[in-house]
Amino acid sequence: MQLTFAHRTDSVHRSFIREILKVTARPEIISFAGGLPNPALFPVEAMRQAAGRILGEDGADVLQYSTTEGHAPLREYIAARYKKRFGMIVSPDDILITTGSQQGLDLLGKVFLDRGTPMVVERPGYLGAIQAFSVFEPRFMAVELEKDGPNLDELERALDQGARLFYAVTNFQNPSGLTYSLEKRKAVAALMEGRDAVLVEDDPYGELRFAGEFHPPIRALGGDNCILLGTFSKVTVPGFRLGWIVAPKEILSKAVVMKQGADLHTSTLAQRLLYEYLETNDLDAHVERIRQRYGAQCRVMTAACERHFPEGVSFTRPEGGMFLWAALPEGYSAMDLLDKAIARNVAFVPGRPFYVEPGMGENTLRLNFSNSDEARIEEGIGRLGQAMKELLGR
Amino acid sequence: MQLTFAHRTDSVHRSFIREILKVTARPEIISFAGGLPNPALFPVEAMRQAAGRILGEDGADVLQYSTTEGHAPLREYIAARYKKRFGMIVSPDDILITTGSQQGLDLLGKVFLDRGTPMVVERPGYLGAIQAFSVFEPRFMAVELEKDGPNLDELERALDQGARLFYAVTNFQNPSGLTYSLEKRKAVAALMEGRDAVLVEDDPYGELRFAGEFHPPIRALGGDNCILLGTFSKVTVPGFRLGWIVAPKEILSKAVVMKQGADLHTSTLAQRLLYEYLETNDLDAHVERIRQRYGAQCRVMTAACERHFPEGVSFTRPEGGMFLWAALPEGYSAMDLLDKAIARNVAFVPGRPFYVEPGMGENTLRLNFSNSDEARIEEGIGRLGQAMKELLGR
Repeated sequence: MQLTFAHRTDSVHRSFIREILKVTARPEIISFAGGLPNPALFPVEAMRQAAGRILGEDGADVLQYSTTEGHAPLREYIAARYKKRFGMIVSPDDILITTGSQQGLDLLGKVFLDRGTPMVVERPGYLGAIQAFSVFEPRFMAVELEKDGPNLDELERALDQGARLFYAVTNFQNPSGLTYSLEKRKAVAALMEGRDAVLVEDDPYGELRFAGEFHPPIRALGGDNCILLGTFSKVTVPGFRLGWIVAPKEILSKAVVMKQGADLHTSTLAQRLLYEYLETNDLDAHVERIRQRYGAQCRVMTAACERHFPEGVSFTRPEGGMFLWAALPEGYSAMDLLDKAIARNVAFVPGRPFYVEPGMGENTLRLNFSNSDEARIEEGIGRLGQAMKELLGR
Repeated sequence: MQLTFAHRTDSVHRSFIREILKVTARPEIISFAGGLPNPALFPVEAMRQAAGRILGEDGADVLQYSTTEGHAPLREYIAARYKKRFGMIVSPDDILITTGSQQGLDLLGKVFLDRGTPMVVERPGYLGAIQAFSVFEPRFMAVELEKDGPNLDELERALDQGARLFYAVTNFQNPSGLTYSLEKRKAVAALMEGRDAVLVEDDPYGELRFAGEFHPPIRALGGDNCILLGTFSKVTVPGFRLGWIVAPKEILSKAVVMKQGADLHTSTLAQRLLYEYLETNDLDAHVERIRQRYGAQCRVMTAACERHFPEGVSFTRPEGGMFLWAALPEGYSAMDLLDKAIARNVAFVPGRPFYVEPGMGENTLRLNFSNSDEARIEEGIGRLGQAMKELLGR
């Protein structure tokens, strides 16, 4: 059988990370490769009770088809939380529940991207988004992600050159752990103003701040072309696949149509169960536990990196989220390091796939701190430091 | 704000059916418009018990991220069921769990359709599939759906003209209720043989046969370019959004990559909960109850149509599924009928949106029998007959 596939199949690739995860699933490996939340913090018992209640009381309703837009009380909850956290006014009608925030990327790609449409990603950028947008064969441009946000000159140049979508992870970015400052948020909002272009601000990690101060989403500072994505995956559980898009009606109604074609609606059970959990539990207290734990794990990791990494290796010091980003001296390859690390039963994700431009990021790597306890972090970073020393010949 | 949207947004439209459903949700309306399974048959208590068990015993595992391909035991269950029902050999590795079978359409559209790629749908065809494929801007061709399957001459001509995908609902089709005969299945399999084209056989209703004999899927009769979609929505519950694609590795691996971009994976909780339900309950006995009920409801509906519809109105007599299809005499409009019907508090879906060609199907309508009890069917069809008589001036 010789089948012709769609042109886009040439440009969309199997997620390198998900492939690495298969290799590193062996129990003897200390893996900093994944992007998993710590399952010890999942509210399992509360979910069990909530499931018993909704299936006992609401019966068939929670098992039937439902609306594409999503469960109305859940959308109201999300709107109320934005108001409480940032004084940000969002109508529940401007919220579409998605099958994880990953689906938000797919739907917005469908709404905005034709083949060849120019769009901007961060350098480095979130791999899952690059993969989702690649399906629509845009022309990727990249702007440097600096310690406090994007390089504004590069961003302005890209927008002036006709970029129609800017994808930004503004808090504790995956992969870098970096966060946009309030000044850069305002500057990005101003740069977007009045353009035939949209900002897609993806904020899966924003609640997980364990140091420093919260900043409002750019959507709260900018105009109607600033779209915001959110998710329950990092503050409750990821296995439900529940996220959302915040956007004005003109955009959202097109995303709704695309969602009808994509999967009709997001799991009724997952929406109703999560809402029941939120109604009967204290999310703030739960998120605070996550912050404390991840903060402790992050501090152990950065301290271990200080101690064990050889001179010339740099790394970020995140104030939240799940990831830390390191760079070997120029000319050294993180792929080579991975071989030596796996020989020592420790794993990470090489940074190369997070760049859309050829030849960049070969010396970079991402380390996840959310899914390993302190003892394993200490031990694993020690081993990784050894692998680095061997690679660097020290 | 003046935003430019992707070209495809011109050709993908809000589901007309989902819009009608909003109008017809008023309790005083007897609605044959929806496509809902009968919630009285949902195994609510069994699901409640299953949820208690998996959350009590497997804990965080059922709430964590999982693999894109889907829960392995669930894929094994699906493979075993095909073997049991049809002696059809499918490897679990050839099954991808999707977020409803609707997502299968989106993923296969991504794998096979470029803008302008010719593809075939049935006349009339499933609206949800037309919507899903429209996102990729194919060139639609239609082949007449006859009482026993597609017009084979038309289908061969379309394939000879370069159609690269044929979308077929082979059992109790939505909207027509029609089923492919065994002979036509074999003929379609033979027509596909050796071509650079795929059959996408969608089978949501196949298990719901309440009269006549089961036929194997075309995938069981044909080559590796015959893809099969399935779903748990009609035999258990639709609100989980659980379906699957059966396809050989070359195709499936590309669909997996597209699914990574679309939503990473299907809800872990939904997959684990459904599998627990299947393991601890008798699906055959459950499906038999659905068959009995839908069969009874269908018989009441066809008998009522016989009695109440005026001369010149024709309708199908389905052997399974959830829908019956009626046609007014040529020249009369089902949209006009809908106005008169809603004035009598009865609703249906006009057939026009099920046709991709202009000006066709204006006189047709779809009637759902799965989600109304016998008394409401009798009453509703009586009212609809009155509306028809008024429209036809009799």
